[in-house]
Amino acid sequence: MVNYIWVPIVVSLLAVAFAAYLVFYVLRKDTGTAEMQKIADAIFKGATAFLHRQYKTIAVLAVVAAVVVAGVLALLGQGSQAEKINLAWHTAVAFLVGALCSGLSGYIGMYVAVKSNSRTASAARRSLGEALVVSLRGGAVSGFLVVALSLLGVSLLFLLFGGLSQPTATPSLIVGFGFGASFVALFAQLGGGIYTKAADVGADLVGKVEANIPEDDPRNPAVIADLVGDNVGDCAGRGADLFESTAAENIGTMILGAVLYQATQNIGWLLFPLVLGAFGIIASSLGVLSIRAKSVIEPKQANGRDPSAIAMQRLNMGYYITCAVSVLGIFAGSYLLLGQGNETANYGIAPWLWYAFAACVGLLLSIAFVFITQYYTAGTWRPVREIAEASMTGPATTIIAGVSIGFECVVLPVLCICGALGLSYFFGSQVHVNLALQESGVINMSGIFGTAAATVGMLMSCAYILAMDTFGPITDNAGGISEMSGQAEDVRDITDALDSVGNTTKALTKGYGLGSAALAAFVLFSAYLDVLYSFKHNPAVYRVDLANISTFVAALIGLALIFLFCSLAIRAVGAAAKRMIEEVRRQFKAMPNIMAEDPAQRVDPDYARCVEISTEGALRAMVLPGAVAVLTPVLVGVILGPQAAAGLLMVATMGGIVMALFLNNGGGAWDNAKKYIEAGNLRVDVKGDVVASNDPEGIILGKKSEPHKASVIGDTVGDPFKDTAGPSLHVLIKLLSTITLVLAPLYYFLHP
Amino acid sequence: MVNYIWVPIVVSLLAVAFAAYLVFYVLRKDTGTAEMQKIADAIFKGATAFLHRQYKTIAVLAVVAAVVVAGVLALLGQGSQAEKINLAWHTAVAFLVGALCSGLSGYIGMYVAVKSNSRTASAARRSLGEALVVSLRGGAVSGFLVVALSLLGVSLLFLLFGGLSQPTATPSLIVGFGFGASFVALFAQLGGGIYTKAADVGADLVGKVEANIPEDDPRNPAVIADLVGDNVGDCAGRGADLFESTAAENIGTMILGAVLYQATQNIGWLLFPLVLGAFGIIASSLGVLSIRAKSVIEPKQANGRDPSAIAMQRLNMGYYITCAVSVLGIFAGSYLLLGQGNETANYGIAPWLWYAFAACVGLLLSIAFVFITQYYTAGTWRPVREIAEASMTGPATTIIAGVSIGFECVVLPVLCICGALGLSYFFGSQVHVNLALQESGVINMSGIFGTAAATVGMLMSCAYILAMDTFGPITDNAGGISEMSGQAEDVRDITDALDSVGNTTKALTKGYGLGSAALAAFVLFSAYLDVLYSFKHNPAVYRVDLANISTFVAALIGLALIFLFCSLAIRAVGAAAKRMIEEVRRQFKAMPNIMAEDPAQRVDPDYARCVEISTEGALRAMVLPGAVAVLTPVLVGVILGPQAAAGLLMVATMGGIVMALFLNNGGGAWDNAKKYIEAGNLRVDVKGDVVASNDPEGIILGKKSEPHKASVIGDTVGDPFKDTAGPSLHVLIKLLSTITLVLAPLYYFLHP
Repeated sequence: MVNYIWVPIVVSLLAVAFAAYLVFYVLRKDTGTAEMQKIADAIFKGATAFLHRQYKTIAVLAVVAAVVVAGVLALLGQGSQAEKINLAWHTAVAFLVGALCSGLSGYIGMYVAVKSNSRTASAARRSLGEALVVSLRGGAVSGFLVVALSLLGVSLLFLLFGGLSQPTATPSLIVGFGFGASFVALFAQLGGGIYTKAADVGADLVGKVEANIPEDDPRNPAVIADLVGDNVGDCAGRGADLFESTAAENIGTMILGAVLYQATQNIGWLLFPLVLGAFGIIASSLGVLSIRAKSVIEPKQANGRDPSAIAMQRLNMGYYITCAVSVLGIFAGSYLLLGQGNETANYGIAPWLWYAFAACVGLLLSIAFVFITQYYTAGTWRPVREIAEASMTGPATTIIAGVSIGFECVVLPVLCICGALGLSYFFGSQVHVNLALQESGVINMSGIFGTAAATVGMLMSCAYILAMDTFGPITDNAGGISEMSGQAEDVRDITDALDSVGNTTKALTKGYGLGSAALAAFVLFSAYLDVLYSFKHNPAVYRVDLANISTFVAALIGLALIFLFCSLAIRAVGAAAKRMIEEVRRQFKAMPNIMAEDPAQRVDPDYARCVEISTEGALRAMVLPGAVAVLTPVLVGVILGPQAAAGLLMVATMGGIVMALFLNNGGGAWDNAKKYIEAGNLRVDVKGDVVASNDPEGIILGKKSEPHKASVIGDTVGDPFKDTAGPSLHVLIKLLSTITLVLAPLYYFLHP
Repeated sequence: MVNYIWVPIVVSLLAVAFAAYLVFYVLRKDTGTAEMQKIADAIFKGATAFLHRQYKTIAVLAVVAAVVVAGVLALLGQGSQAEKINLAWHTAVAFLVGALCSGLSGYIGMYVAVKSNSRTASAARRSLGEALVVSLRGGAVSGFLVVALSLLGVSLLFLLFGGLSQPTATPSLIVGFGFGASFVALFAQLGGGIYTKAADVGADLVGKVEANIPEDDPRNPAVIADLVGDNVGDCAGRGADLFESTAAENIGTMILGAVLYQATQNIGWLLFPLVLGAFGIIASSLGVLSIRAKSVIEPKQANGRDPSAIAMQRLNMGYYITCAVSVLGIFAGSYLLLGQGNETANYGIAPWLWYAFAACVGLLLSIAFVFITQYYTAGTWRPVREIAEASMTGPATTIIAGVSIGFECVVLPVLCICGALGLSYFFGSQVHVNLALQESGVINMSGIFGTAAATVGMLMSCAYILAMDTFGPITDNAGGISEMSGQAEDVRDITDALDSVGNTTKALTKGYGLGSAALAAFVLFSAYLDVLYSFKHNPAVYRVDLANISTFVAALIGLALIFLFCSLAIRAVGAAAKRMIEEVRRQFKAMPNIMAEDPAQRVDPDYARCVEISTEGALRAMVLPGAVAVLTPVLVGVILGPQAAAGLLMVATMGGIVMALFLNNGGGAWDNAKKYIEAGNLRVDVKGDVVASNDPEGIILGKKSEPHKASVIGDTVGDPFKDTAGPSLHVLIKLLSTITLVLAPLYYFLHP
């Protein structure tokens, strides 16, 4: 059994090698024309410059945080002085390793992504299939590095911190890894999210609206910053987000597993998330490799089928392959790890099978989220259509319709989360474990482990999902490079099709990230309560009682924290965008030849200056919301105690889930309502009434129509919702969990 | 002690007489010119027609609900068959009485309000002072009836249901009164809120934007519907809202008081909310009477002071008088009711004093809410200024800024609520009561009663606040009547000034209503848990444990319910407004002479048809959100049991509080950003940068400027937020409490 610890370690090392192979594959491709290379170089310089400065800032903050946390735990922790110091240095080391791994995977992933964009644009000159494969493999580098480094970090720390000899105590020592990952993720996502939207809003408001030049026009000084933004926001930011998800979920499950280990002496409970995670990496690599250039139907042979539908279908096929292989992995892993214990279970079904079922529930939840997100944000379904039709009566009704859709779209995902939690808990509850706390009815640990298994199942396809996500900014950039370097129309058709697929996959990843965060949350709460119990040995710590006034007050503050954080994140975009707008206006005024008609006289705008302004603005603006997010739970825990901290954590998590759903899907729906109009789907009859989107006699209200202008306003409103505040909330809710886990000894020290 | 039950009964009868005096006072005033009377008549007919039809619908729904609830309790309740039937018929009777009283006070209050508008307009021809007094006293009819009938209903039912002989059992029998009130309030507020915004949006979008005629222009077919809407939304809706607040709070406090009665045999604990409520009515009547026409400085003598500032100052003075007298009432009432027990308390301070302090905390909270609401939604403070300045860059940034302010404005009120809860609980905890549950540490009933005392203190000024609220639609209508009947400019200046004061007072009332709902919520949770304990006698029912999976799931569903309800309410406005827009367009096309230049040829539009369309639309649209609000908690309670129902209740209440703050204050801030620009406060220098609002050299960007257009869009977005969804949420959260209280026996029956 103990030997299985080598499975995640070996597999994640192989995954790193696989990522290296993908890097090699992508870099070998040609980089396109000189014009393409020039633009790609500018994006590359901008993106790496931002990341360097961002990670430098984060590194300083992380070292400070590590020192503070270590100091607090050494002075105000639990147990003897030696125990305190032991916990303190382990936590600090784990924190820094977590922060480093998260930063490293974000950095390398983005490095390859910005190297893949011109190669994708160049490949599009040859075929759709090649362009698809180059961009997906470029994105997969990030996906595999994130998942592999997260798994490797947790597994190695577990091994090195003595997990095999002391399985019960070790998981608490590596909690710092999750906190370090969350800490980096918060600032990476916030900074990236602010950067991308400040650049986007600045480029649009001055370039498109005031100067009346098209999107991605090289005369726009903010155009490079805008392209850089897609990388630092969607690629580095989301990578850090899911790095944190897998890290936190693995650690949380191991803490629960440690409790079950005490009852069963089976270390399989602890290794369960790691081994299944490793199988998930294998499944994801098969999914990525299943997509080959030759199997893609080229536009010329497609008989008029939409190339974006073809590409999306291929990506979906890869996802289904990943899921199918994951199911095999679930059953194999569950049997290997939990199949040899002498626990019993109801209905004559073996215990390991119940947990395999629970893990399948998680997998199904991820598929449900993919469908629901598509329904609310894509294509021609009711929600997007409703917003597009509301744009007939102007921007006000467009906004109102979008807000109403955003509020509504909370319901289905929440019901799915509740269903998945309930079902996996029920499956887990069928297993009898010989645990005193369980037999006295204090907790139902086997049921809670069922929800943990569901989380593990959901996160098995993480590497594949992340590959699809990073595919988004790569194809977006490839589209911009095609446009700016003046490629032929059939090439641009391919890059545009891939760009539109990328928009869908980015939205799906947000849904997936949120669903996994929601599921992991229950695991992390339970882990926190286990940690408290390990200090206090009082069953009362397992109750997070809202009828207690401090818990109630803390919970209400948690909800207000979510709203305040959103407010600060959205406002930060406004502040950074304002400086960008001023700079773009200044350049147009100071260098009128940017807009010269005669190409001989025309000069390039100062792209670098815009990149710098966005960088500075984002870094400055991310500090306040980040600080509020870190300090509020700490203050509440210190003042009101550990149970109140749990109340804050739980209700803030619920609030974060519903608000992120509102912000992500509302924003996505506005975006796609605009695209719906641009694609000529909004049609009216001669009386001005809306008719079906495919009515051949309908009069198309397309680009430049009044409804289109209203929909652009909706899209602009949605931008900071879906790309800054919403994704940052995913990170925030996991940060709340990890920070509370790490500081549990402090809260208990102050409120014994 | 027992005799004190006559205090609320006598005082509320006197309050009804006082309301009758006010009716007499207002109706004696002259109704103005024939032109004024004609418009007022049209408003009167529209408003009463809507209310008749609305209350007819609600009556049917209420009778159905009463029969269902009685049937359920008779079949699936607690105890012996006789006990079940006893509870069932008491609950049904109390439900119907509550529904009737709520409907009656709403109806009469609105009747007088629509009779006061032309009288206010006419009085404005004579003096500001007289117009102020007429409109305030007209509004006070509603205020005093609401509070008096609520208090009278609870007190009489308590007396008639045998409260003096069986103080412990009786409060549970009158819970139905609160549910009946909530039930009516939900539909009254939803229907009124949808009506007013459908008419408003319809009138604005076609009249102001398409036909380019000013607001309140008699040529607009929807103008009467718009004026009617202000009455049915703000007057009848908010009246029902606060009727419910006082009813629910009184009953909740009495349930807690019944537990303390068991320990002390002092019925004063039960009578506490009723007697203090009676003193509050007296305080409010002194506040209203303190405002006399002669004490108002008339515009001519004002040396250029803004008449709206003068009027607001007078109203504020009346409020301070109400608060000051309330403080006396608090100390007198606490001493009379709780001063003779033999309980002890800490720090050598008498027990009754601790509760008097707690009630003062509630009073202070109401004042804090008044200030915070003003800061976020009024005048020239940062939030409104920020939105106005954001309108410089168009509608998208206006919306983003408003959303960001809306999210932010959650923080201060939540901290105040938390502070008030914590402090009043602390004060209450200083009192020692001889209660077994308290001594074993299960609950801190004396502390919880402290929060109840705070709620009682907060609601003492309710009648005065409601008078100021109904003052809003009266002065709004008076302004419309002045405009439409073509009064001289100095008369219109007076009605405009009062209208602008009315906007502020309406916003304050929403803040007050929400604050009191939040405070009452904790009382109602605790009452629910007491009711459960009375069935189960197991201390475990006092724990609402979020670590329990069904409670967690129910809580998450509760949060999703809040979002779904908001979505449905906002969408209902859109649906009703759409039909209104079509009707107005139809009239302009079918009757071109509406817009004839020559007055001789001009014809009146068909106002009645618009009123009817708004009425039908609102009644149809209110059913779905209402049904969702009623059925979701019932389903969760039935399926997941009583503790899960408590989890849903608590977290949905928290979610409702923060969402209502967001919607009310965000909407109010947009509204006032528009007014800020219209008042000429947005000024720029020659470079186009914003300068101070009073910079004499600044170039004013006023009406018809681009920023103004953007701010109008913000205002339109905010309308359904602040006048439909937000206020309906206040009602929803109290409905959740009362429905859960009423159905507690059912949940327990299914999950014993």
